[in-house]
Amino acid sequence: MGQKKLSLQEVANLVRGELVNLSSEIEVSGISSLDKAGETELSFLSDKRYKNKASESKALALLVDKSNASGMGDRAHVIVKDPYGAAIILAESFLVKSEFKPGVHATAIVDETAEVDSSASIGPYCIVGKNVKVGAGSVIESGVKVEDDVTIGSATHVHSNAVIYRESVIGSNCIIKASAVIGGVGFGYTQDNNGNSKQVPHLGKVLIGDDVHIGSSSTIDRGSFDDTVIQNGVKIDNQVQIGHNVRIGTNTVIAGCSAIAGSTHIGSFCMLGGGARISDHLTFTDGVMLSGNSVVGKSIEQPGVYANGFFGLESYRDWAKKVVLFKNINKMDRRLKDLEKKCNE
Amino acid sequence: MGQKKLSLQEVANLVRGELVNLSSEIEVSGISSLDKAGETELSFLSDKRYKNKASESKALALLVDKSNASGMGDRAHVIVKDPYGAAIILAESFLVKSEFKPGVHATAIVDETAEVDSSASIGPYCIVGKNVKVGAGSVIESGVKVEDDVTIGSATHVHSNAVIYRESVIGSNCIIKASAVIGGVGFGYTQDNNGNSKQVPHLGKVLIGDDVHIGSSSTIDRGSFDDTVIQNGVKIDNQVQIGHNVRIGTNTVIAGCSAIAGSTHIGSFCMLGGGARISDHLTFTDGVMLSGNSVVGKSIEQPGVYANGFFGLESYRDWAKKVVLFKNINKMDRRLKDLEKKCNE
Amino acid sequence: MGQKKLSLQEVANLVRGELVNLSSEIEVSGISSLDKAGETELSFLSDKRYKNKASESKALALLVDKSNASGMGDRAHVIVKDPYGAAIILAESFLVKSEFKPGVHATAIVDETAEVDSSASIGPYCIVGKNVKVGAGSVIESGVKVEDDVTIGSATHVHSNAVIYRESVIGSNCIIKASAVIGGVGFGYTQDNNGNSKQVPHLGKVLIGDDVHIGSSSTIDRGSFDDTVIQNGVKIDNQVQIGHNVRIGTNTVIAGCSAIAGSTHIGSFCMLGGGARISDHLTFTDGVMLSGNSVVGKSIEQPGVYANGFFGLESYRDWAKKVVLFKNINKMDRRLKDLEKKCNE
Repeated sequence: MGQKKLSLQEVANLVRGELVNLSSEIEVSGISSLDKAGETELSFLSDKRYKNKASESKALALLVDKSNASGMGDRAHVIVKDPYGAAIILAESFLVKSEFKPGVHATAIVDETAEVDSSASIGPYCIVGKNVKVGAGSVIESGVKVEDDVTIGSATHVHSNAVIYRESVIGSNCIIKASAVIGGVGFGYTQDNNGNSKQVPHLGKVLIGDDVHIGSSSTIDRGSFDDTVIQNGVKIDNQVQIGHNVRIGTNTVIAGCSAIAGSTHIGSFCMLGGGARISDHLTFTDGVMLSGNSVVGKSIEQPGVYANGFFGLESYRDWAKKVVLFKNINKMDRRLKDLEKKCNE
Repeated sequence: MGQKKLSLQEVANLVRGELVNLSSEIEVSGISSLDKAGETELSFLSDKRYKNKASESKALALLVDKSNASGMGDRAHVIVKDPYGAAIILAESFLVKSEFKPGVHATAIVDETAEVDSSASIGPYCIVGKNVKVGAGSVIESGVKVEDDVTIGSATHVHSNAVIYRESVIGSNCIIKASAVIGGVGFGYTQDNNGNSKQVPHLGKVLIGDDVHIGSSSTIDRGSFDDTVIQNGVKIDNQVQIGHNVRIGTNTVIAGCSAIAGSTHIGSFCMLGGGARISDHLTFTDGVMLSGNSVVGKSIEQPGVYANGFFGLESYRDWAKKVVLFKNINKMDRRLKDLEKKCNE
Repeated sequence: MGQKKLSLQEVANLVRGELVNLSSEIEVSGISSLDKAGETELSFLSDKRYKNKASESKALALLVDKSNASGMGDRAHVIVKDPYGAAIILAESFLVKSEFKPGVHATAIVDETAEVDSSASIGPYCIVGKNVKVGAGSVIESGVKVEDDVTIGSATHVHSNAVIYRESVIGSNCIIKASAVIGGVGFGYTQDNNGNSKQVPHLGKVLIGDDVHIGSSSTIDRGSFDDTVIQNGVKIDNQVQIGHNVRIGTNTVIAGCSAIAGSTHIGSFCMLGGGARISDHLTFTDGVMLSGNSVVGKSIEQPGVYANGFFGLESYRDWAKKVVLFKNINKMDRRLKDLEKKCNE
């Protein structure tokens, strides 16, 4: 495969940059971190703290903003407004994307009632069930199970070995990473007349909007009497568990290893730090920011930054103060002892 | 596919209900939550707090108990003893279950020494190894690996892309959800003569009883010198990790994202809340209820409700008191300061 | 399959042991725990606390050290220096390993540009992409996706249904357990000009050294501008999440359900207890031991044993003291009340 190459003129055009100590005809082969960049690659200085690293970098040239350009001396560099933003733009250009041929691979087993757009790609060893719909330009990689009555929009990319259980609905421009599992029956039991536990039948579905990303090995259970709903623009990292009947509002971001228990509703534009644990049947309003590894057992009615609710939920500021006190609990104990001594004298 | 339909007479018979303001010939198409139910569906009022939702629900009719029936006025309803229980019974009736044809799919690779019951179903792209036994009515969906010497009982359902490592034994009436992994070698190392870490050979197996459910992306490691044992009726949610040599007693329920480290023995009829973390080599007696996200480093010898053992295990009541004190640690600090001032004066 | 058999003479030779009350011609069929061992199996006594179990064990003979041999009486036993070490050696001998035929299974889809060593084994329903390299003696089991430009060394074993994303590099003598996912795009977003979140392109790869083990359902994301690097000898348990640009130093051991957020660098010879949560952009020096379920938000610059950093990181000793104080916070409150009373009198 090999990475693409760009001339420095192309680079300058892409990022509206000014070439310094550089010939515009030189070709560069990529863009990397200061540590990793090779002699034919670019790198970028986005934080003054890395100035030393920058001077040691083997990169052919560095993207810098004006404030850092003065320190560059003879070093080849490209002056841009926002070095990190420019790096992202160039990364996009250098990125070699996998190509997928439209059509159904000979080994994919697609039910005759499925409607797969002619521009969609169904990879080897996929199973596509009855009445499934796959929209224009969508890619289903290899080993994916798409059960009966699933609907997938256009330009959605389902990575290898994912499993989409029956009746799930996935929007357009979504990414479902490898081995994600969507639409399994939720964890709900009642007791039958003999006291044996009996699985609650799940009539609800998983409904996923547009521009949603789901991480690898994440699991999203279907609803019981309600649906499980992931609205437009939601981004979910790896190894996240979403219980039955959960609703996640638009553009909310959920970092890795978080878990949201059944029937909890999270608002829009929330950010859940990694490893967050949210109990069942709660409601979060819009705009809630939750620090990593928070354990939350209460609804959150006001937008804001919330911190580790291990002992019940608190604002980040209140929590931080208590943590300092807790960390000094031994001092508190000593002060108390001193007082006791004094009072007893 | 489309959902089944039931006449209200059939509904009344199924739930032993009394139809009020309703003709017994009307057909209903499903049962949903108060919010979601459409005009041809039933819903149910199981909690007085949802009375307002009930009056706004579009449902054709509501299942209610006697105490709520009086408030129904002209609203069509069905009086039953236990509305939620009745809803479960109806959900079971409306549920359209996937059907699996008995037999081995043409693309499944089944070793000639495997004994697959003629009423069992082996789906596409499954691999079934040597000496595997699959009992009557069991279903192995697509892309499942069943390694050599595995035994699966009757009426067990293994969902897509699960992996059952060699020698695992799975009972009857079990459900193994998509991408679960059972029987991998456990995480144990010794050092060889050169100080390099060397994996402990695992001669033990995973033994799973009857009526056991295992969630998606859950992982259950095989034993080293012992077996890993999951007894009858155990229910395990998604993304649960069970270490080598662990034993889980009958009918214990383990919620999502819990982890039980090696050689720990959990009793029967225990309930572990989601995200629980149990250290290795512990023993829990029967009937232990553990609150969500508990971190437990000690054995539990008395049945009861235990709470977040982050600082060591405690009864739920003791823990709750300390949490209140902790949440007021800043007040305690202030009181201490006041006293210090007083004493110094 | 059935386990192998060894004569007691062979056993004695393997573990340099002395047979007592035993004929060297007797054959044994395996080695198990004291509880589980059958009448034709060996067991071992590695801890005096299990002496009662030992006397009740059905095992044909026990491995014991000299100190415990005296209490054996008429019981058949084998005297060895280190009973557990001897048991490991014998387990290795009794272990029946799966055999894999060299060559590519007829149903594997291997790109013509891939270089698969003739002694390697590619199992059924695998997909092997362009320019992939698989070294001598490596085994790729069934249903594995190996994307374009992946390199796998020699004697590496990739278990069923794992997914190796494009450009990942895996060394020799590695084990990748079932359903592990390596090389997916990391969880990083920027905002485009319209305020919509946009995935950061990931030019970095996952680079895995030799003798590395990766657990089932573990997920390791590729780097963005850097690579994600797992150095030689690292052992990673099930359900571990490794974020983009993370580096793990040689021989570090990471227990189950741990998560390491993006760009964090862990040193060599570290041990992370199960369920550890490490924030992003941190650095751990070599030789850091972290207790289970630690939540760490700060770099660690000194080797040593660290404990639950829930309130910020501390040495194990300091932490343990504070936990005792915390557990007595109600007593502290009472003492404070007593003092207040006294002072007010």
